[in-house]
Amino acid sequence: MAKKIKTAITPTRDQDYPQWYQEVIKASDMAENSPVRGCMVIKPWGYALWENIMHEMDILFKQTGVKNAYFPLFIPLSFLEKEAAHVEGFAKECAVVTHHRLEKGSEGGLIPAGELTEPLVVRPTSETIIGDAFSKWISSHRDLPLLINQWANVVRWEMRTRLFLRTSEFLWQEGHTAHANKAEAIERTQMMLDVYARFAEEYLAMPVIKGSKTAAERFPGAIDTMCIEAMMQDKKALQAGTSHFLGQNFAKASGIRFQSAQEKEEFAWTTSWGVSTRMIGGLVMCHGDDDGLVLPPRIASSHVVLLPIIRKAADSAPVMEFTHQLADELENVNYHNRPIRVEIDTRDIGGARGWDWIKKGIPLRVEIGPRDIAANSVFVGRRDMAHRDKQSVKRESFIKTITAILDDIQATLFQRALDFREMNTHTIDKRDAFYDFFTPANSTRPEIHGGFARSPWCGAADCESQIKQDLSVTIRSVPLSEDTVEGHCIHCGKPSDKQVVFAKAY
Amino acid sequence: MAKKIKTAITPTRDQDYPQWYQEVIKASDMAENSPVRGCMVIKPWGYALWENIMHEMDILFKQTGVKNAYFPLFIPLSFLEKEAAHVEGFAKECAVVTHHRLEKGSEGGLIPAGELTEPLVVRPTSETIIGDAFSKWISSHRDLPLLINQWANVVRWEMRTRLFLRTSEFLWQEGHTAHANKAEAIERTQMMLDVYARFAEEYLAMPVIKGSKTAAERFPGAIDTMCIEAMMQDKKALQAGTSHFLGQNFAKASGIRFQSAQEKEEFAWTTSWGVSTRMIGGLVMCHGDDDGLVLPPRIASSHVVLLPIIRKAADSAPVMEFTHQLADELENVNYHNRPIRVEIDTRDIGGARGWDWIKKGIPLRVEIGPRDIAANSVFVGRRDMAHRDKQSVKRESFIKTITAILDDIQATLFQRALDFREMNTHTIDKRDAFYDFFTPANSTRPEIHGGFARSPWCGAADCESQIKQDLSVTIRSVPLSEDTVEGHCIHCGKPSDKQVVFAKAY
Repeated sequence: MAKKIKTAITPTRDQDYPQWYQEVIKASDMAENSPVRGCMVIKPWGYALWENIMHEMDILFKQTGVKNAYFPLFIPLSFLEKEAAHVEGFAKECAVVTHHRLEKGSEGGLIPAGELTEPLVVRPTSETIIGDAFSKWISSHRDLPLLINQWANVVRWEMRTRLFLRTSEFLWQEGHTAHANKAEAIERTQMMLDVYARFAEEYLAMPVIKGSKTAAERFPGAIDTMCIEAMMQDKKALQAGTSHFLGQNFAKASGIRFQSAQEKEEFAWTTSWGVSTRMIGGLVMCHGDDDGLVLPPRIASSHVVLLPIIRKAADSAPVMEFTHQLADELENVNYHNRPIRVEIDTRDIGGARGWDWIKKGIPLRVEIGPRDIAANSVFVGRRDMAHRDKQSVKRESFIKTITAILDDIQATLFQRALDFREMNTHTIDKRDAFYDFFTPANSTRPEIHGGFARSPWCGAADCESQIKQDLSVTIRSVPLSEDTVEGHCIHCGKPSDKQVVFAKAY
Repeated sequence: MAKKIKTAITPTRDQDYPQWYQEVIKASDMAENSPVRGCMVIKPWGYALWENIMHEMDILFKQTGVKNAYFPLFIPLSFLEKEAAHVEGFAKECAVVTHHRLEKGSEGGLIPAGELTEPLVVRPTSETIIGDAFSKWISSHRDLPLLINQWANVVRWEMRTRLFLRTSEFLWQEGHTAHANKAEAIERTQMMLDVYARFAEEYLAMPVIKGSKTAAERFPGAIDTMCIEAMMQDKKALQAGTSHFLGQNFAKASGIRFQSAQEKEEFAWTTSWGVSTRMIGGLVMCHGDDDGLVLPPRIASSHVVLLPIIRKAADSAPVMEFTHQLADELENVNYHNRPIRVEIDTRDIGGARGWDWIKKGIPLRVEIGPRDIAANSVFVGRRDMAHRDKQSVKRESFIKTITAILDDIQATLFQRALDFREMNTHTIDKRDAFYDFFTPANSTRPEIHGGFARSPWCGAADCESQIKQDLSVTIRSVPLSEDTVEGHCIHCGKPSDKQVVFAKAY
């Protein structure tokens, strides 16, 4: 009989992937559902991760000349209605403020009072309210390009929610830029997609495919929606960031006009681009294992936990002194321009302590007992290795090499995710093979299917929608490159000149 | 005839203080009103200031063991009702979400649809929703203290708004802590007040008075509200931060219970404390002058602007090279653990360029022309000095001394504000003198009055409210110290043992 391996998370990914996801979030103590439907509470371990994501991404934005600002939470209904496709896209999921105070009702409880003359929508995204500001800020070509970002909360009322992946309120950044001509706006759309791709790969260790969306999957009101798509461990795709070329649609809706160098009045060309706390859900599903969360060092909530081992009272003083001194020295080590982040856990709860940190995904666990101190060593466990694979390392050597160890973990996670994606991405040009690829082997386990298919598509919306109806598979990404690949549409068999990425998706 | 001094801001502080305030905000390009009533747009120059405030304050919070988290924007009406005084205090200013989608109305336009079974209030503050989370997170004395903060937007519907000072939506931080006993909770309330006072004085260069509020001015639901109060240049007080000891009121309302070390079930003791973007309004009114904003270097949006002077085409290359090289070197200078923040302004708009930066309050302006380069010098203007007082300084010397110069500006601003407050604070123990002190010399200029009065008060709410009714003067601060000062109540003449600070206030 095979030995049963005990895992910290039940069920495992193989047993029930969706449930595994919920259990990993719970075990890592990152977030929980709130009593407000669809809204989550982001707990300190999850919020620290988001803080690091914000910190690092903000630096990348600012390197491209973007400045941060803040715009109102509320959008007058009439603003949302300015762009027809836009309001159509968001009308079904808007939280609407209709009153501005509470008063005692006839039954004693409080009821809404002070009805507003115009209802206010809690921003689902801010193109229209920011567009209004841009229309005042821009009058000449000298005011362009205008490159603005805001870090904010947004609300899209969702009926079925899942922590981080789909919540009614979420945190995000939304960039909004205006340009004097089409080429510059397209260039900016691509530049921000590149920033997202770089961030996903270098910081989140999450390989992504860059591409465009088809018309059916576009942001409401956009001319082109570019995106980065990552493969999760159930082989489904997760859209991890989008960058929209909005043409002059929103400039016309909001009246963003400028006087050109040739003294002609023209409408500006705008873009918008965003990533959200959803990225954290992607991180969980990309790197997590059957023992819980696995955090890439570049954005980990914390890098290393020190676990003093005190079996008798006399050990306490020397062990704690060694521990605090090590913590101080580690906190002085520079890791990619920021100090190493150190936790000390002194709880007396036996083996549960180490497991808690494994489940939280911290990159390094360091045990410190009297024997380690005697040998001037520490006992180090890496989260990307089996939990029993711990190594005794000389204290000085650990301090000297910790940044290299963290970078090695980062590289390992990226390579693993890339290998997994490559292994589960297939070029398929026959319709039967395509349908087989996406048909679950077992009807009670819809998550078990082939992965990403690179297949020819004729460009017809009918073929796209029929495949979606048949298989719940969508076109995730139309490659950016101009390279044509001659073939025959996977659905209708007509000649096609592009190969697109099909997948089931979150 | 006296020479009329031209100022960049019209009207001056003396001519019309409230209007001067609006003009300074406008001229500095920090913020503007939005089309959404009472909500502001914080523009890049204002938001950079807020980012620096957040950055520095967050470090101080974390040094005391506080961790950041994020809680829902929406609060179910029933939660707000859990604490009677609390809901009473906020009912008149709540934005209420009643619907979760939009649909076509009979007249063609969109109308709110999908009525919620329970209305949701956009958080005016989060004691009740965070209290609910705390009730789940806390079960044992080992879970205490729990020290949480969130950076967030809040909404308090205001009928009369003023940029930064009073807006329907504002940005803030709200700290929430839970403790095992009363003494610890009181200690935390005072500790955070001390953090706020330190932040105001060391970073904002704004001297503050620490004290408690009277019962009439307390946060709805608090046992004690402690505050920091600063004097603005119109001699009115601005409450710049509050720290509340909530006793067991909110713990009882939200069911925050724990098992004590003695295995008894007890209610926790909680605190909450917050500062907001209102602080920026205080900063403007504390340091601004008739030429506009004056930013304290520790939190300035940027520290120094380089102004290349190019009068003929041949100058361009050497001047720009010198400028960029200087910028690079300055950006490598460490100023209180962060790099110096540098702007380069190449606009060809003559003298308006220097004035723009004066109005924006940047601490240092540096002109760089061919003659400066020939002498290996730069021409430096300090915002805390008259704009004509510019000095030629050797380039190397400027780089070496810039942090000392910035610290000197910081110290100067603090000392000026302190001197002003001291000059306008009087100990008054006669009722007539007190009434004279607060009676405007000119009825059309209500802002012209004496300043802060330190006067005896018997402790009776009647005396307090009569003074408020007569003079629009309130008790801003009841000193924290136990020192008693024997005297007779400034209003009723009965014996009193404390001297409190009276002032008109924002």
